[in-house]
Amino acid sequence: MRVLGVDPGLTRCGVGVVEGVAGRPLTMVGVGVVRTPTDAELGHRLVAIEQGIETWLDEHRPEYVAVERVFSQHNVRTVMGTAQASAVAMLCAARRGIPVALHTPSEVKAAVTGSGRADKAQVGAMVTRLLRLAAPPRPADAADALALAICHIWRAPAQNRLQQAVALHTSKGRTG
Amino acid sequence: MRVLGVDPGLTRCGVGVVEGVAGRPLTMVGVGVVRTPTDAELGHRLVAIEQGIETWLDEHRPEYVAVERVFSQHNVRTVMGTAQASAVAMLCAARRGIPVALHTPSEVKAAVTGSGRADKAQVGAMVTRLLRLAAPPRPADAADALALAICHIWRAPAQNRLQQAVALHTSKGRTG
Repeated sequence: MRVLGVDPGLTRCGVGVVEGVAGRPLTMVGVGVVRTPTDAELGHRLVAIEQGIETWLDEHRPEYVAVERVFSQHNVRTVMGTAQASAVAMLCAARRGIPVALHTPSEVKAAVTGSGRADKAQVGAMVTRLLRLAAPPRPADAADALALAICHIWRAPAQNRLQQAVALHTSKGRTG
Repeated sequence: MRVLGVDPGLTRCGVGVVEGVAGRPLTMVGVGVVRTPTDAELGHRLVAIEQGIETWLDEHRPEYVAVERVFSQHNVRTVMGTAQASAVAMLCAARRGIPVALHTPSEVKAAVTGSGRADKAQVGAMVTRLLRLAAPPRPADAADALALAICHIWRAPAQNRLQQAVALHTSKGRTG
């Protein structure tokens, strides 16, 4: 399973590709950051993010895209930009028929560190260990994108079983 | 000046095209709503909005796109979807090199009714009058999209003068 994780942001959009299956060692395929200038117009920044994500999809051909689920309880200005950047990432994936999964920050932290309240350093340290890297990926947005991809690989089997159960139940309800 | 107004939303995205200049009677060129099913996956809904906006841009070739500026002080769930739908509209316009303008709901209300706190009915009534329509456009999202386009046509001269002044000041600063 090859997953592109996206930590959405207008100024820095973390992207990381991880390959593997739950219960086996994971491999980092690529990591980086799509940046847009803070003084550019919003529309142009969204176009730059689209081009960046498209390049990552072209180069790495992920089977799944995992995007951080955005909540609005944080800083108002930041959260709008995050929601807009995440929309572009989801759009790029869905347009290609790539399934998009959303994971909350605490789900991601819990997946890689065991605690939903882990700090950035702890997430970075675990990503480094789990992917057997020489050093934590920088900036933190890049590490978070890898953590999202890892989270998706580990959570996916349970999610898929749940989706299958729901689909089965729904089809039974329709035929019964 | 031909303007496409977009009242962003995931379930109903209002779109309206108005032609005219400030100080002259305005003409409605088209009005409608891009809808996406509430039970569809978020990525697919964003793709549907993209296709809808693209169709409107293809058919009406606006010179400007005016989008409602989203704030996050309202309902959390709604505002995220609104921010994401607005990102898609801005992306579609910017990709074609069409300038995107953002206007706040109170700017739009003040432009068409004289009061930034006017209600939906008042906005609908003034849109109907200003565009000499037989009846208020339905649903309200469609009327709001037309109001955005009208607001842009009326505010644009001032905004353009401001942009020119800023550009002049900046270039003077650089050369001086």
